[in-house]
Amino acid sequence: MIIVGELINSSRKAIKEAIDKGDIEYIKQVAIDQEEAGATYIDVNAGTFVGTETQHLKWMIENIQQVVDIPCCIDSPDPKALEEALKIHKGTAMINSISLEEDRYDAILPVVAGTDLKIVALCMSSEGMPETCDQRLKIADKLVNGLVQNNVPIDNIYVDPLVQPIGTDDTYGFEFLDSVAAITTEFKGIHTMCGLSNISFGLPERKYINRNFAVMAIARGLDGLIINPLDRDMMGSIVTAEMLAGRDEYCAEYLQAFRAGIIGNPK
Amino acid sequence: MIIVGELINSSRKAIKEAIDKGDIEYIKQVAIDQEEAGATYIDVNAGTFVGTETQHLKWMIENIQQVVDIPCCIDSPDPKALEEALKIHKGTAMINSISLEEDRYDAILPVVAGTDLKIVALCMSSEGMPETCDQRLKIADKLVNGLVQNNVPIDNIYVDPLVQPIGTDDTYGFEFLDSVAAITTEFKGIHTMCGLSNISFGLPERKYINRNFAVMAIARGLDGLIINPLDRDMMGSIVTAEMLAGRDEYCAEYLQAFRAGIIGNPK
Repeated sequence: MIIVGELINSSRKAIKEAIDKGDIEYIKQVAIDQEEAGATYIDVNAGTFVGTETQHLKWMIENIQQVVDIPCCIDSPDPKALEEALKIHKGTAMINSISLEEDRYDAILPVVAGTDLKIVALCMSSEGMPETCDQRLKIADKLVNGLVQNNVPIDNIYVDPLVQPIGTDDTYGFEFLDSVAAITTEFKGIHTMCGLSNISFGLPERKYINRNFAVMAIARGLDGLIINPLDRDMMGSIVTAEMLAGRDEYCAEYLQAFRAGIIGNPK
Repeated sequence: MIIVGELINSSRKAIKEAIDKGDIEYIKQVAIDQEEAGATYIDVNAGTFVGTETQHLKWMIENIQQVVDIPCCIDSPDPKALEEALKIHKGTAMINSISLEEDRYDAILPVVAGTDLKIVALCMSSEGMPETCDQRLKIADKLVNGLVQNNVPIDNIYVDPLVQPIGTDDTYGFEFLDSVAAITTEFKGIHTMCGLSNISFGLPERKYINRNFAVMAIARGLDGLIINPLDRDMMGSIVTAEMLAGRDEYCAEYLQAFRAGIIGNPK
């Protein structure tokens, strides 16, 4: 399971303040904490800083890479910001994200074409947010073919089918889950990846819904999540679901998580 | 979701003692508690009482039906015990269970043939416990065809694919989950049903594993569970998974469970 730690995002108040104050120690600690909790990528986003996004992205990435061994997931729709950030990033980064929205597709494709970068491919088009499995598959088909034709290996592509709130329409859960299964089946070797907290928008006990939805998505083949890895209950659910999905030989990861106190009655 | 409350089983010490003492009030209360917690059937099993099973089954069913409105799931491999119990059972019972083991199949088929009884069809044959999805499908195929040819409507059949412990083989989780999906797809209108606590045999935090596995199975189409309905965390997981699977219009059941205190941070 690929776990992208989502915490270093300037839309979060604590990160915005740390950037404002130049408090890089705080940001480095958040990176360290996420790596220790099991993240495989550190998402880095400075999108709320219009005009200075690139500068903040570079500053954060350079400093984060001094203290963690895992690569960054560089999170920006701006190809210039991505290119500048990639110049200083060590190792193989993930780019978050390309989509089928026209401007975004044209901007991001050249950044990843012919590289070994990992790329999150968001099932969104200029026609708006998809609602059904079929709509998602059609968008995924164009995105994946476009990327592959531009020499992005299929196993570097992480399709995000895009979660919609179950409180809005009771089909939104299974349409998403079906699309995870369909994308995994349709494109051999591809990965799927999503942030799924949007599923619980407007409902009570959101974290509880989110982690059960993560478990369901893993049952359908999901192999990447953009989450807060410091959420112990979420991480415990993921480890358990991975074991039950047959991705944990001898239940070794589960037993290790149990001994580490991550598995247990969630608080 | 069909919830068969599993608590009234003579293999449980408290039930065995109540039967020994003739303490019907205790047994009635367990039935009431399970109905109030959301059970749709009350399993009744006196299998450990060799020679007096029939007498105890009838005594329990008669008394339980005085205090609950839901039917019983009569749990015995003995056709004579089932027939005697059915004579006094009011409403449409569920029979637990037929299998493809030769003796059992021949004994139970006449009990349900041409009736409107619900029947649990266990994916077990004389060749032993199935391990793969394919093995389960082959057994299910023979069982379902045999039942349908004997005038059991397909929507009265609850196939139990039979859970095996993940600690024994890391394929046992997905082979089971795949078989839930395959059986649901292959036999239109059929139901699936299982007790799933066997999945966690030998591992720590078994209840935690069991409820996550329930969520995964619901994601693959499972629509029946034999469980302890007094397990609040399990019931909360089921209600949440049902919502996320698109079986809870307007999230009404989820919101009701939240208000009733069933959904929340599990204890």
